[in-house]
Amino acid sequence: MTTKNKQVLLAARPKGAPTEKDFRIVTTELRDPEDGEVLVKNLFLSLDPYMRGRMNEGKSYAARVELDHVMVGATVGEVIASRHPKLKVGDVVVAYLGWQEYALSKGEGVMKIDPGKVPLSAYLGAVGMPGVTAWYGLFDIGKPKAGETVVVAAASGAVGSVVGQLAKLRGCRAVGIAGGKDKCEHVVKELGFDACIDHRDKSMKDRFREATPNGVDVYFENVGGEILDMVLARLNPFARIPLCGLVSQYNATEPYGVKNFGSLLTNRVTLQGFIVSEHMDRWPAALADLGGHVAGGRIKLRESIAEGLDNAPAAFIGMLEGKNFGKQLVKIA
Amino acid sequence: MTTKNKQVLLAARPKGAPTEKDFRIVTTELRDPEDGEVLVKNLFLSLDPYMRGRMNEGKSYAARVELDHVMVGATVGEVIASRHPKLKVGDVVVAYLGWQEYALSKGEGVMKIDPGKVPLSAYLGAVGMPGVTAWYGLFDIGKPKAGETVVVAAASGAVGSVVGQLAKLRGCRAVGIAGGKDKCEHVVKELGFDACIDHRDKSMKDRFREATPNGVDVYFENVGGEILDMVLARLNPFARIPLCGLVSQYNATEPYGVKNFGSLLTNRVTLQGFIVSEHMDRWPAALADLGGHVAGGRIKLRESIAEGLDNAPAAFIGMLEGKNFGKQLVKIA
Repeated sequence: MTTKNKQVLLAARPKGAPTEKDFRIVTTELRDPEDGEVLVKNLFLSLDPYMRGRMNEGKSYAARVELDHVMVGATVGEVIASRHPKLKVGDVVVAYLGWQEYALSKGEGVMKIDPGKVPLSAYLGAVGMPGVTAWYGLFDIGKPKAGETVVVAAASGAVGSVVGQLAKLRGCRAVGIAGGKDKCEHVVKELGFDACIDHRDKSMKDRFREATPNGVDVYFENVGGEILDMVLARLNPFARIPLCGLVSQYNATEPYGVKNFGSLLTNRVTLQGFIVSEHMDRWPAALADLGGHVAGGRIKLRESIAEGLDNAPAAFIGMLEGKNFGKQLVKIA
Repeated sequence: MTTKNKQVLLAARPKGAPTEKDFRIVTTELRDPEDGEVLVKNLFLSLDPYMRGRMNEGKSYAARVELDHVMVGATVGEVIASRHPKLKVGDVVVAYLGWQEYALSKGEGVMKIDPGKVPLSAYLGAVGMPGVTAWYGLFDIGKPKAGETVVVAAASGAVGSVVGQLAKLRGCRAVGIAGGKDKCEHVVKELGFDACIDHRDKSMKDRFREATPNGVDVYFENVGGEILDMVLARLNPFARIPLCGLVSQYNATEPYGVKNFGSLLTNRVTLQGFIVSEHMDRWPAALADLGGHVAGGRIKLRESIAEGLDNAPAAFIGMLEGKNFGKQLVKIA
């Protein structure tokens, strides 16, 4: 039996952008599962922007990670020992087992998955939390109608890429915003968006105006900052804004002041903040829909994969700076 | 027959705060009503913050007033000549007949009212557009539950005063924000709010925190600016924000940057901008409810009344600066 477990702990609460010193990698002893427990060997770890909020002292929309505790995160793994009634050795599962090689679990939040249907890593992306975030926000809050214009930033990322592809499947015009020419080219040529604006382009606002000739009906918001102000200025009457993230603000020490807030009034906009884990009733429908689209090739995936837990902190720090290209994962084993 | 009609025209589009020079008072000839028309003698004119937006060149949520045209506005008046099939001499009506002593109308938007039920001027306040704005925003968007905390700024004004009184009738804690001790005292002692914060008080934020010990569940937004940021910082999870105005911004040449936008995400807030004239289906229920509350003394009115159309521009300019105390009206005749 394995007895060593490599883990990444939260060592310090970052001020502004996290650094590698805010993490500590340790190796601990692993005990055997007790009655009712399962031992899972993690294969992939998902890195997501929400984790930055969990590193803070203050209130976020979910519990913070305590200092010297394992960083939280979704994982795909394989059951290697079980004294749990419903899980057996060899089962492949998706769960929130954190930044570590192995984990003992009583089975809460552990979901068996079909390893033959879509690539395992997809259960952490388009057929996992990011995909359901895109699906729920776009459909249940954004309510796009065919012919409308849907805008999403971080368009090559885990959530944004699914938002745009779902919008296209619904018959909408999909306009992405991403950082860099490579990402924008991928978003248009591979993912099928109608247009993608490079936010590093100095004439971003002009390009965005050209890309949204009929204004914006749904803005799936995950970045905030100047991009938010730019999109607010292009909203149509009765636009909808599903708000699931403000990644440009997570490392900010001073918050950005949103100048075009008045557009929410003049355009009678509906904006709704949400966290997808509070809408578990919608997950089965979302996962069925997303799984079918990925298996059928209608939703394409792109992944950035870091090798080994030792590289997880650097990959996470880079993701917050937009260095990833597609869904950021860590291959643990 | 009357042949002279005093009118207030839009003379220039204001930059920032309007001045009296942006208006021009003229006397024009009045013709007799043609077939299908009615001639109304205006008794009261309502002055409302939304009118500032109509003075601008740019896009607002409603059509701008053209230069040299009569300023828009709701009026209560009496039919003094009629060739209209459904309106007769002596009928008292509420309508959008603008800043003028008399008006000819084909009857669009002209509604007969019962002059015995509530004071005539109430049809321009608590039993008119401002009241329905309060009712619709609070109930249909804010959805307050008994025991929750409802916050509204401009709390002694036409909309805010009704929001707070309706919230109290629903069993909520009502917290107002107003400019000056006199207004705050009125809001608490006369209107029955639980607390009212003077936004001229340097320790406003501390006072506000004390007044909202259980946070804020519904923020009826009509002012924007620093007050908006203060309230955003006190929102509870799943708070609702009906957004009907941003009066602090109407005269601003540079928009205020909203710093606590992130609260909409972390608290999974629903914010909805609205303009009450787009929800005409809800007016009958609202007016019946509001009329009953005013007639029964459960909703109290306070009015600032300017005498004569000559004083309308100054009253309007003062209202945008918060100089009015209660619903601002002009008594025309």
